[in-house]
Amino acid sequence: MTAEPRRRNAAATRAAILASARRAFARAGYDGAGVREIAAGAGVTAMLVNRYFGSKEQLFAEVCADTMRDPVILSAANLEAEDFAAAFARALVQVTSPGASPLDGFLILLHSASSPRAAEIGREWVARGHQSTLEARIGGALARERAGVALALVAGLQVMRQMMEIGALADADPEALAAILTPMIRALFEAER
Amino acid sequence: MTAEPRRRNAAATRAAILASARRAFARAGYDGAGVREIAAGAGVTAMLVNRYFGSKEQLFAEVCADTMRDPVILSAANLEAEDFAAAFARALVQVTSPGASPLDGFLILLHSASSPRAAEIGREWVARGHQSTLEARIGGALARERAGVALALVAGLQVMRQMMEIGALADADPEALAAILTPMIRALFEAER
Repeated sequence: MTAEPRRRNAAATRAAILASARRAFARAGYDGAGVREIAAGAGVTAMLVNRYFGSKEQLFAEVCADTMRDPVILSAANLEAEDFAAAFARALVQVTSPGASPLDGFLILLHSASSPRAAEIGREWVARGHQSTLEARIGGALARERAGVALALVAGLQVMRQMMEIGALADADPEALAAILTPMIRALFEAER
Repeated sequence: MTAEPRRRNAAATRAAILASARRAFARAGYDGAGVREIAAGAGVTAMLVNRYFGSKEQLFAEVCADTMRDPVILSAANLEAEDFAAAFARALVQVTSPGASPLDGFLILLHSASSPRAAEIGREWVARGHQSTLEARIGGALARERAGVALALVAGLQVMRQMMEIGALADADPEALAAILTPMIRALFEAER
């Protein structure tokens, strides 16, 4: 075996473990997901998981970083949109559709909130990831707080529209929802400067 | 024993069971809370719980109704406030303070979302309770959807500020938070009529 395929195999194994861990943490949270189960999901041994990621805690941090890699609402296209509030509202309505799968990153945070160490890692990744991207895009006075409220709005729609399927949100016309969210998000990003 | 104290005792027993059930459902959700544990918390037998409430399902419905009885954000004073958006924002900041205890009603819904029957009962109570109060107060076009989004915002701040203590929200000056929430909520209640 030459060095090249071995590197490729290592990268594929790492990716398989990461994907399995992401599914397990999203479903069961930090405490509920075991390294043995994550290993089985990737078709490897628990020992190999530890060789690649060191510990469950480090694996969890890598998964948190991984969920922030391809943001749906904070995509490059949306961040560059002339009407950022409208693009944000449209993407928010789309990702929280009752049929769509909830965002892994959010489920992982929600289901791991009861583990103090996992919650701390999650908070740190939110601050470094979505929070910081959004803060830079909003800019100006109270950008940090505005970004935090925007993340809360995303979380709230995921909980009430997607997870709990509250009638007023689950049955709503997506266009109508975007039409009331846009001026609301615009006010959040721009008002009282 | 005359009829009067017996009625008073029955009311006290009923209230003790309801309070114990409310704590248990908020902590562990519908599936996680047992009738035996609820009975023990009220100092009665499981048989007595069933005699008073019929079934765990009926008890759960009574607890849902109970959590809607003294609304904090949708209090009579706030509903009558001239600037309802500002009153809503202030109350929202107050109830989601990182130190304050999360709203039982929300925790019960969140922790019971995985039980289809409990989620259905919860959804029904949200529709009959907070959703319907808020819808009537907002009025006009898309009042149902606007009320749903307002409930999502409340849920999101409870999750991100109070449960997860995301830095941007947990460390924020309450006055600053209210200042950015007020125009946002005003836009939600009033824009694009």
